[in-house]
Amino acid sequence: MIIEMKRGTDPENIRAVVEKAKLLGLEVQINSGTERIVIALLGPDTGDIDQGSFEVFEGVEQVLRIQKPYKLASRDFKMQNTIVKVGDIEIGANKLVVIAGPCSVEPDKEITLACARNAKENGAQFLRGGAFKPRTSPFAFQGLKEGGLKILAEARDKTGLLIVTEVVSENDVQLVADYADILQIGARNMQNYRLLDAVGKAKKPVLLKRGLSATVEEWLQAADYILRSNDEPNVILCNRGIRAFDNSTRFVYDVGILPVLRQLTHLPIITDPSHAAGKFQYVPDYAKMAVAGGTDGLIIEIHPNPKEALSDGAQSLTFSDFSRLSKELKNIAAAVGRSI
Amino acid sequence: MIIEMKRGTDPENIRAVVEKAKLLGLEVQINSGTERIVIALLGPDTGDIDQGSFEVFEGVEQVLRIQKPYKLASRDFKMQNTIVKVGDIEIGANKLVVIAGPCSVEPDKEITLACARNAKENGAQFLRGGAFKPRTSPFAFQGLKEGGLKILAEARDKTGLLIVTEVVSENDVQLVADYADILQIGARNMQNYRLLDAVGKAKKPVLLKRGLSATVEEWLQAADYILRSNDEPNVILCNRGIRAFDNSTRFVYDVGILPVLRQLTHLPIITDPSHAAGKFQYVPDYAKMAVAGGTDGLIIEIHPNPKEALSDGAQSLTFSDFSRLSKELKNIAAAVGRSI
Amino acid sequence: MIIEMKRGTDPENIRAVVEKAKLLGLEVQINSGTERIVIALLGPDTGDIDQGSFEVFEGVEQVLRIQKPYKLASRDFKMQNTIVKVGDIEIGANKLVVIAGPCSVEPDKEITLACARNAKENGAQFLRGGAFKPRTSPFAFQGLKEGGLKILAEARDKTGLLIVTEVVSENDVQLVADYADILQIGARNMQNYRLLDAVGKAKKPVLLKRGLSATVEEWLQAADYILRSNDEPNVILCNRGIRAFDNSTRFVYDVGILPVLRQLTHLPIITDPSHAAGKFQYVPDYAKMAVAGGTDGLIIEIHPNPKEALSDGAQSLTFSDFSRLSKELKNIAAAVGRSI
Amino acid sequence: MIIEMKRGTDPENIRAVVEKAKLLGLEVQINSGTERIVIALLGPDTGDIDQGSFEVFEGVEQVLRIQKPYKLASRDFKMQNTIVKVGDIEIGANKLVVIAGPCSVEPDKEITLACARNAKENGAQFLRGGAFKPRTSPFAFQGLKEGGLKILAEARDKTGLLIVTEVVSENDVQLVADYADILQIGARNMQNYRLLDAVGKAKKPVLLKRGLSATVEEWLQAADYILRSNDEPNVILCNRGIRAFDNSTRFVYDVGILPVLRQLTHLPIITDPSHAAGKFQYVPDYAKMAVAGGTDGLIIEIHPNPKEALSDGAQSLTFSDFSRLSKELKNIAAAVGRSI
Repeated sequence: MIIEMKRGTDPENIRAVVEKAKLLGLEVQINSGTERIVIALLGPDTGDIDQGSFEVFEGVEQVLRIQKPYKLASRDFKMQNTIVKVGDIEIGANKLVVIAGPCSVEPDKEITLACARNAKENGAQFLRGGAFKPRTSPFAFQGLKEGGLKILAEARDKTGLLIVTEVVSENDVQLVADYADILQIGARNMQNYRLLDAVGKAKKPVLLKRGLSATVEEWLQAADYILRSNDEPNVILCNRGIRAFDNSTRFVYDVGILPVLRQLTHLPIITDPSHAAGKFQYVPDYAKMAVAGGTDGLIIEIHPNPKEALSDGAQSLTFSDFSRLSKELKNIAAAVGRSI
Repeated sequence: MIIEMKRGTDPENIRAVVEKAKLLGLEVQINSGTERIVIALLGPDTGDIDQGSFEVFEGVEQVLRIQKPYKLASRDFKMQNTIVKVGDIEIGANKLVVIAGPCSVEPDKEITLACARNAKENGAQFLRGGAFKPRTSPFAFQGLKEGGLKILAEARDKTGLLIVTEVVSENDVQLVADYADILQIGARNMQNYRLLDAVGKAKKPVLLKRGLSATVEEWLQAADYILRSNDEPNVILCNRGIRAFDNSTRFVYDVGILPVLRQLTHLPIITDPSHAAGKFQYVPDYAKMAVAGGTDGLIIEIHPNPKEALSDGAQSLTFSDFSRLSKELKNIAAAVGRSI
Repeated sequence: MIIEMKRGTDPENIRAVVEKAKLLGLEVQINSGTERIVIALLGPDTGDIDQGSFEVFEGVEQVLRIQKPYKLASRDFKMQNTIVKVGDIEIGANKLVVIAGPCSVEPDKEITLACARNAKENGAQFLRGGAFKPRTSPFAFQGLKEGGLKILAEARDKTGLLIVTEVVSENDVQLVADYADILQIGARNMQNYRLLDAVGKAKKPVLLKRGLSATVEEWLQAADYILRSNDEPNVILCNRGIRAFDNSTRFVYDVGILPVLRQLTHLPIITDPSHAAGKFQYVPDYAKMAVAGGTDGLIIEIHPNPKEALSDGAQSLTFSDFSRLSKELKNIAAAVGRSI
Repeated sequence: MIIEMKRGTDPENIRAVVEKAKLLGLEVQINSGTERIVIALLGPDTGDIDQGSFEVFEGVEQVLRIQKPYKLASRDFKMQNTIVKVGDIEIGANKLVVIAGPCSVEPDKEITLACARNAKENGAQFLRGGAFKPRTSPFAFQGLKEGGLKILAEARDKTGLLIVTEVVSENDVQLVADYADILQIGARNMQNYRLLDAVGKAKKPVLLKRGLSATVEEWLQAADYILRSNDEPNVILCNRGIRAFDNSTRFVYDVGILPVLRQLTHLPIITDPSHAAGKFQYVPDYAKMAVAGGTDGLIIEIHPNPKEALSDGAQSLTFSDFSRLSKELKNIAAAVGRSI
């Protein structure tokens, strides 16, 4: 942590800052420049210290944090890339994974089963589908709950695809974990810390979506909530678009975060082109970008008849569009030295 | 809902859209302009219909929603301003309310009691203080939990101030409701819908903070989650800064939303200058802006010794700063025809 | 400037950074913490050095800038508040200034003259009105050019109000300066550096609007472009709303920047509530917020008949609304120890 | 244009809106739903009409624009993709174009010549390099001006590469056009309308960068400023990152805009991965994403020795990194059915 003092500040103010730092167990080095005093605080855990603890002192111009506030998710903590194993599938390995399925598990179970068959045919390893839906409006369809989980399990039995599904309440974690292979934390719940704690304790792999205005630091700290309950890192990050001024797509596609994450974290990264785009027309190009940019996998919404979908129809691919895309992605993956 | 068709689209595409609309029970009017076909869909509940349901049809250029997606929180549902009564206090009346207190209830209970006395002396009606803290880092102080609630209750006994405190889990709602007069939903949980459901069912007044990138529509839909379980509207909105590109303050102060909310909703609005500012130096000016702009109250962090605060010290006012501010606000309130 | 090296980096990399710093004439201090090497670079002008110059070196984890990149606009350069004098009027003094007038100077000169009379009656010191209009569409009304300037000059003759008007091209600076008392640089031109240079050389007071996504640093550097050609500081900053995800108003009202600016710069600050709001209904509350928050003045769009305005009618106040507002602002100014 | 009236509004208000619309030459259709009156205004040029012209009327709840505000840049105006020809090079054809070179043309002309040779060897068609630099600080290196243009011309003579260089003032347009093959408008000048007018009149191809918070509509309207002076469309759009809350890269990479632009405009699109990334480490992945997502070309900063670059060293690729990238891009281009 670096503290810049105001020009000409009273030495008493410098002493007060130094004293506080020593109380916190930090080593202090004072740099006296030509014009300003800059105080460096050094120690193993300065990432835990709130900048505000020093901003509040008289004579402080600004406080800059050097150490990252996240730990377990960071490359400093673990140098080599993490591969999360789910059954026989490796997430984060050379071969990309594909997760496909409908937005919601709908009452007509044939829809989910048809999605599973189509996903399987096109090389996907996982089926997605929401049984518990966090809907912006309380008056919208909220999901089939355990009924939906049972449909997903039936699809797994029939196709061998593993299941990724969202959990929206700490009270449902055990139930969802009984059915799912990967627990998904949605964007709106990325900072629902009690839910993060609960899924961490379930000892299952977790797909952690980025909150729609979360910084990378906040996202990796959310991962820390889960990681601290597990001996092996079991978090898969998922970028899915952020909120910014541009509303020509549902969210601004944050695919540019991929190489940044690679540098900061050892965790694998899956990309969701569907929610960023919001329109099926853009999904194929978004998927291609992610593969070219180094994603470890994709999660894509598909539906046998998007016009009749109970949610997110506009961003769901038809089966034929998804088949075409799956083929195209193979060449792009090969072009960056990977397979899919 | 207004649907613009692409130029020269096949009449078959228009028929398909019209058919879907009729299936949804909507009245359809077709406007044929010089260049384009524009279809208006009319009905009592078009706000419930997802734009995507129509974007997915061939030949559709764009879909514009006219009706608001929120209901119970809207001025259309209730014309006159809502006043939420908590004990003898009215929130939303001519007299502004003030909520003050420490960020966290700290282990040293004298801190909270001192805050309560100072708040009381300066005319506040409510004491705030976090017993359950949603912290960005899992390694940071998470609050005293029930121990904190007991300290708040003791402060209420001693000063007569009513208690506002945050609840972060549906499983704690009953416990928190046993102690608190107003349940606070924090910004990070604004779209934790299961929590919203649970606090709605607790039949207590709720202070609903704006999510840091929530649109007004999403915010009022979150209010709907709570309102639908209550006969009388019991939600108080709280603006507290949004996330944007400018990081010269902790958040970008969204005080400009006040007159917008007045037009769209009947609910009272409390403003939090402390979290937006992030630095105590800016809090007084931020509080004054809110009063001048028509807020129904303020929630302000204070601390006897901000340098030693366990959280948010940098944005907490000292008692003397808070006393000075309280006096200054009286004149501003008077200048806009209100009292505080 | 602070440079954090990667953990366990080769000492050769540290030597390379140190060498580069010495070449740039900087003093170097190395802090060896328990885990990391942090290098502090000190010197009178590190604000001029691009962070990138060091980010490009091997082994560098991050580069943090301590010194501000702006100079002449900064409080470090000039401690006491600047008052810009225009004729007899002081901008930045205890008494707030008011600038009012139509968005565009329209062909019917009676509109501008009526605005001037109304502004004068309500205590304004300046008349605003665009003769050169930067319009988003090339097919929209672009202003009357010199014809508009003549109308403004006539209004000045008749009312004694001084003139604020926008200049959009370096080639028009002399022409506009011949008529105007204050040259306005619009938001879209805040980083049109050649224009900034040209208005700086005109030796007239300049109202410098914030670019709609400009950081405070960029804004004050833009001020530096003008200030460096003038012995006396002659820049008045103008906040007018920024672009962010919330589009419930035309721009997100950046009134919270007022106390931040006070701390960083000595320049006076005028607030434009009209462009932020975009709707006349919100303008009065926005104006009140700014006065309560410490602005040095307001610039407000008025029009005798907003429904017929050639531009920005939706955000223009009628004369009666402006009169009412002017009275209300007096009490708020008094409440914060100022007059208007 | 669609106008929704407030619930229960006075019929007089509806009449006033209808009258205004008729004065503007629009056809009016009134839709009376179960709860609200919705007025559709139809006509060939409603895109020119400001929403505000109707928002200002009593009883209006909201005004929605249907027609796009841009014309010449739109797909409605020209259905088939535009190919801009520069010498023998086609921009917008199946083969992608590559523009490479240093950020600034530096005083040591060997730097620019070396860049040109390296660019040529790696298959680039164009050399970039700034002779006029729009710098955030007035105290930073502002470019060699005509001296820089001469160096670029020499590089063209020696390598056959065509020249892309920025123009920052309407007064320099003729000079720059005498040397350059493509005139570049930088992000900060995207709404410098007088400059757009001037480059339009120069009848040269223009590379129009997106303003860092420009909407797609504003960007395409800026293109209209240039297009209206030319019989053949000669604008090449360039996405280069936008400003949003995430500052882990210099700008948020707006590559997701590619398929959106394809749908809305016939103009070719070049992508700048360098300015978005801000760090050379991310540039290769960013370039790959753009090619996978359908860009028509890339503009990339390279430098023989980035550590010594006068500007943007941190985001410049070394020659060997650029060579490696150029090879990798060939496979990605092939994977999406194109060449590079």
